[in-house]
Amino acid sequence: MHTLLDSVRTPGDLRKLSVIQLTQLAAELRDFVLHTTQTKAGHIKSSLGVTELTLALHYVYNTPDDILIWDVGHQAYIHKILTGRKDKFHSNRKKGGLSGFTKRSESEYDPFGAGHSSTSISAAIGFAEADRLQGKKRHYIAVIGDGALTGGESLEALNYLGERQLNVTVILNDNQSSIDANVGALAHFGNYKALCDAFHLDFEGGVDGHSVEKIINSLSRSKEVNRPKMIHLVTQKGKGWKAGSGSAKATNSLSFQDVFSQTLIRLAETNDTIVGVSPAMLSGSGLHEFGARFPERVFDVGIAEQHAVTMSAGMAANGLKPFCHLYSTFAQRGYDQIIHDVALQKLPVVFCLDRAGLAGEDGPTHHGAFDPGFLNTIPGIVVAASLDGSALAALMEEAAGYSGGPFAIRYPKDGSFGKLEKKELPLGKLQKVKNGSAKAVISFGAIGLEVQKALEGSEYAHFDLVYLKPLDEAGLIAILEEYNEVIIVEENSKAGGAGESIVSLAGRIGVDCRIKCKCLPDAFIEHGSRQQLLEVTGLDASSLKEFIDR
Amino acid sequence: MHTLLDSVRTPGDLRKLSVIQLTQLAAELRDFVLHTTQTKAGHIKSSLGVTELTLALHYVYNTPDDILIWDVGHQAYIHKILTGRKDKFHSNRKKGGLSGFTKRSESEYDPFGAGHSSTSISAAIGFAEADRLQGKKRHYIAVIGDGALTGGESLEALNYLGERQLNVTVILNDNQSSIDANVGALAHFGNYKALCDAFHLDFEGGVDGHSVEKIINSLSRSKEVNRPKMIHLVTQKGKGWKAGSGSAKATNSLSFQDVFSQTLIRLAETNDTIVGVSPAMLSGSGLHEFGARFPERVFDVGIAEQHAVTMSAGMAANGLKPFCHLYSTFAQRGYDQIIHDVALQKLPVVFCLDRAGLAGEDGPTHHGAFDPGFLNTIPGIVVAASLDGSALAALMEEAAGYSGGPFAIRYPKDGSFGKLEKKELPLGKLQKVKNGSAKAVISFGAIGLEVQKALEGSEYAHFDLVYLKPLDEAGLIAILEEYNEVIIVEENSKAGGAGESIVSLAGRIGVDCRIKCKCLPDAFIEHGSRQQLLEVTGLDASSLKEFIDR
Repeated sequence: MHTLLDSVRTPGDLRKLSVIQLTQLAAELRDFVLHTTQTKAGHIKSSLGVTELTLALHYVYNTPDDILIWDVGHQAYIHKILTGRKDKFHSNRKKGGLSGFTKRSESEYDPFGAGHSSTSISAAIGFAEADRLQGKKRHYIAVIGDGALTGGESLEALNYLGERQLNVTVILNDNQSSIDANVGALAHFGNYKALCDAFHLDFEGGVDGHSVEKIINSLSRSKEVNRPKMIHLVTQKGKGWKAGSGSAKATNSLSFQDVFSQTLIRLAETNDTIVGVSPAMLSGSGLHEFGARFPERVFDVGIAEQHAVTMSAGMAANGLKPFCHLYSTFAQRGYDQIIHDVALQKLPVVFCLDRAGLAGEDGPTHHGAFDPGFLNTIPGIVVAASLDGSALAALMEEAAGYSGGPFAIRYPKDGSFGKLEKKELPLGKLQKVKNGSAKAVISFGAIGLEVQKALEGSEYAHFDLVYLKPLDEAGLIAILEEYNEVIIVEENSKAGGAGESIVSLAGRIGVDCRIKCKCLPDAFIEHGSRQQLLEVTGLDASSLKEFIDR
Repeated sequence: MHTLLDSVRTPGDLRKLSVIQLTQLAAELRDFVLHTTQTKAGHIKSSLGVTELTLALHYVYNTPDDILIWDVGHQAYIHKILTGRKDKFHSNRKKGGLSGFTKRSESEYDPFGAGHSSTSISAAIGFAEADRLQGKKRHYIAVIGDGALTGGESLEALNYLGERQLNVTVILNDNQSSIDANVGALAHFGNYKALCDAFHLDFEGGVDGHSVEKIINSLSRSKEVNRPKMIHLVTQKGKGWKAGSGSAKATNSLSFQDVFSQTLIRLAETNDTIVGVSPAMLSGSGLHEFGARFPERVFDVGIAEQHAVTMSAGMAANGLKPFCHLYSTFAQRGYDQIIHDVALQKLPVVFCLDRAGLAGEDGPTHHGAFDPGFLNTIPGIVVAASLDGSALAALMEEAAGYSGGPFAIRYPKDGSFGKLEKKELPLGKLQKVKNGSAKAVISFGAIGLEVQKALEGSEYAHFDLVYLKPLDEAGLIAILEEYNEVIIVEENSKAGGAGESIVSLAGRIGVDCRIKCKCLPDAFIEHGSRQQLLEVTGLDASSLKEFIDR
């Protein structure tokens, strides 16, 4: 029974209700969300926590004319339901369905999309500055969590905002959470008033984020003040959430994440210098287990990739061996630091690039498509990828013993491995996976598992490149000279990747071998399950078989 | 007469002097710097401003055992002179000489090098965390300017520091300057006390930065407090600086920077939506002139590349046409934002990537070697480079009219052009520069000017690639089919660049043409004049002639 909800098609309908009705609507919305989707608890909880806020925002402000920007965008489920997307909400995060994040192409109520954090204030400022020049007046609201506020870009934006005195309202959704519990002095001591004093912003603190009425009062007051301001809202992440059967894993198989976690613990047992660093991804990475074993040697810096990388560089300069865990797509946030602080100074930081390749339901903001290209161009860095769990363990072992500079290892969120096989993957050497003749497939990373399936029962050979940098030129030349045809398969963009590197080598030595390359298309790839996306991009075993045979 | 200075070889000697003698030493140091070097006024002024601070730091702290990290590193001239590098100081910024920045390989007194800003606090924290684990106690000092403090990484680091309560001292050198006058609410209102309250750091404000005695007193007190703290020092940038004949330009010729500036003004005269955005590089970019003409349409956001890019994205989403000016090497700081906020949303932001290629005396932290590779991997972005001033103007015109997404144009700090020639460079089309036979050289960007010199009197043809992305496949295939040999020349790293892209295309179509590639070596290139570095890397006209003829 969603009597009220059924009557609300747009925020315009909402504005006809009484404040008391909004409280009832909040309950209906929670019920609807919980009955419609059970996937991605983190996103649902973030969204449930802002149910009252979402209602109040659309009630007070004249969206979509007023500009409402949700940071990260994963807290926008209620927003989506209230802005004409209720009937499609069941398709959330499914292939062809709604995105799990805000998205410009999805609705005029999403003026700026996001899947990464800490961009909303800068974006709102951009809208405000543009209006100022174009003589338009309206309201600009950025909703940001206390976790995302620790990202440097947010703080850069507040500093700018305070000087320019634009009419931007920052709603700080303080649920004391990042992905895990939030860290940092701001969250720990909660002195957001002082932060606003430093940046010369108006501040209203401690608003009850689960009272629609109080939020409406606060927003209505704020609306009359033509100055930048922060409204600090206290909410409870996942308010109304009832844990279902959950995602308790019953299998004994190991994912890449399990292998990362177990291997790091094993290496750290005999090497005191090893530490784990993560920007707010302890649970997603497997570093929670490492931290349980070595509480003094795990460093969750919060959402702060730049700081994570440079701090790792400082640690390495002072005798430690940091394993800095980054999702491939978030490594983009620390790119300059990887170049300028780590590689240029030849500091031995290991970068474990998780969620490499197609990230599945999180979609285009989260696919790890670019890291091989953007890393390959950096002098002196090692760029490796893991075929499987055993390879990841072997590469981490290799990296632990390497002191020549940074060492990056990419692997996807995936994997189901049994007992790991002890193997060695010496630096700069490719590996033979399967004997064969006529054609040879060279794969880079875990996409090699699809290649293995594609080659079942085939006469063709299979090699694992292992290292994109340094490239095993001798090994590759031997392959190029032995086989009539070489097929290169990788789960990343073309530019700077394995295909271009090997074709370029073949061109230089002038070898007479047909080479075909398969990689991710030069496009942003939408969301869907990893298997669906492999099919969409022609990287599943069956498409690969056809490509190889062709 | 540098009586005292001549007696000081290391900080140990310094510590034997009286505080009164330090004041005399400060005068001698200023005199020495001004008589030894006159290049790079910005660096000299930054260094002169911290003369007293530098003396006090080495006097109070037990360097090099205590960890002293200079943010950016260009304020470290006095530090270098006092730490055993006085006799080499005349070689500062010259090929084979001292670096203009701090550098680990140069001295044990430089525990962490930097040429980019805002990294010092993170690095100092890394040292402190490593010591904590390793049971070592000492002091950690990060010296950072008020300009660099606005970079998001600094604020990420302060947030971390306040929670961890490490014994790190942040010296805020407040000279009210970034490269130009500093911007942002922090600098404007100067409420650093509130910032420290927010981040839970001890704070001492308003210390006279030109009184050695007062600084020493302050540092000595701070040294006894085992907590994180910020000491706010008021200094005068360039204290003691006497402007010499200066760098007044007497020529009528135009640099790329002049062309950028004039063209943007011309385009903006007929297109109201054009605005200029820069992270603290108004004078370096040529945007000062644009701002003088259109004061409402220029946006200096301070040292805050992430914010600069996302704000540009917000502006573009709201109807403006931002020209976001970034030094190539600093674009690395906004890389995620270029991908996630601009390209993914297909927003028409123009990125003018200045200082592309070899940046000369600033050295490895400042060379713009990587942008073609790291941009080429991004779907839907246009990646172009300017052969000369006329080409830059034409590309900016093309970009101004392009609404399909981001458009990047790279060009070096260089150029001496007469009257510009009106030309058109339609999207995705390469251009013939010179007719010829047998061999064809395809160059990407301003290195084509060296190719032109190399080909003087030669029979070979010369083409300007203009666009790395989208690649002119038809045009390239025609060249590959017509000539026996094709030589590709570019001033950037190999991975993802023009050479690999074209060789990869040739491989795909199976053309029978010898291809040779010349690009920057896969190494960080040291400092020197641009001409010297072109020679070192084999990219000067004479080396290129040899390479082409070979």
